Amino acid sequence: MKRLSIVTTNRIEIADITALIRQAIRDSGVLRGICTIYVPHTTSAITINENSDPAVKEDLTNILNKVVPADNKYLHTEGNSDAHIKASLIGASQTILVENGKPVLGTWQSIFFCEFDGPRTRSVLVKIISEK
Amino acid sequence: MKRLSIVTTNRIEIADITALIRQAIRDSGVLRGICTIYVPHTTSAITINENSDPAVKEDLTNILNKVVPADNKYLHTEGNSDAHIKASLIGASQTILVENGKPVLGTWQSIFFCEFDGPRTRSVLVKIISEK
Amino acid sequence: MKRLSIVTTNRIEIADITALIRQAIRDSGVLRGICTIYVPHTTSAITINENSDPAVKEDLTNILNKVVPADNKYLHTEGNSDAHIKASLIGASQTILVENGKPVLGTWQSIFFCEFDGPRTRSVLVKIISEK
Repeated sequence: MKRLSIVTTNRIEIADITALIRQAIRDSGVLRGICTIYVPHTTSAITINENSDPAVKEDLTNILNKVVPADNKYLHTEGNSDAHIKASLIGASQTILVENGKPVLGTWQSIFFCEFDGPRTRSVLVKIISEK
Repeated sequence: MKRLSIVTTNRIEIADITALIRQAIRDSGVLRGICTIYVPHTTSAITINENSDPAVKEDLTNILNKVVPADNKYLHTEGNSDAHIKASLIGASQTILVENGKPVLGTWQSIFFCEFDGPRTRSVLVKIISEK
Repeated sequence: MKRLSIVTTNRIEIADITALIRQAIRDSGVLRGICTIYVPHTTSAITINENSDPAVKEDLTNILNKVVPADNKYLHTEGNSDAHIKASLIGASQTILVENGKPVLGTWQSIFFCEFDGPRTRSVLVKIISEK
């Protein structure tokens, strides 16, 4: 298991971690298999989407803020209930495929770490399982 | 594969199944690998979030009910279309990491089984894959 | 890794790919393990839900269009920002369990490929990992 460290500087931040995942797969020596990317935090998530236009991340953030407003009347009184809900909507992990020692990603796909209650220093855990 | 049985008592219920998953991993004898938790039902889901304050679960339920109201005009006439949609938004499975024969969870993370059309008796399926 | 080809004919389309996944698992020769189904596209997703009544897919589409309207004011100017966001809400992959060389699905469960910016010809990637 590899542990990556991610530092965020805003309350909501969607950070491209594709290069880190690519390196973790290379370091594992696994040529063919799957790679599970997991956040051990309750206000964070992993998603895969387009990164060539950064506006996509902003649009995603804006819709999430519309659907799950930060200033709604929540029962949880720590002021980050929206962040917990956003985390469950996006999901705590993603599993991708590995071939030839590399992640199998589409042309426009990047892997994103999402923090919904930053700024924080967070971990992303990576486990690569070989096909045989 | 291990099959867990979960009994719910409300229409919407978010139940902590962390102890059951911990036991399933221990029983498997796998020390390092991944664990996929899967619901074979179309109105259920698995999510990972905070459990120390039960209000987080209530806030999640309230937002899901706002976004996907039970009494919307749906084409599906069985009265549980909202439950199917909530299940797809949260997702039928989660994959977590296993180290030292234990699930790798953050300090505040618990694993939740979500039922959106209960009360029902449901199954949760667990498969642990060893790293080598 | 197996690559399936999916042709869609509408902007939003939710297509049942259960038979294709069943065949991919059979072809792999794996009897027990897990199967990760992955879309290498940023406007597509995989979900598992009910297929016996096609209205469930329509209700899901209608709610997604309400929450993430196609004609919202988006920063991304390619006209498909809603499709990217819908893809992140549903998720780029699903992992299911394999027993006796078959996918373990509930009575009412089907595996769906979702396209939110079609019509297009798309790929679905399938990797089966054996339990030992």
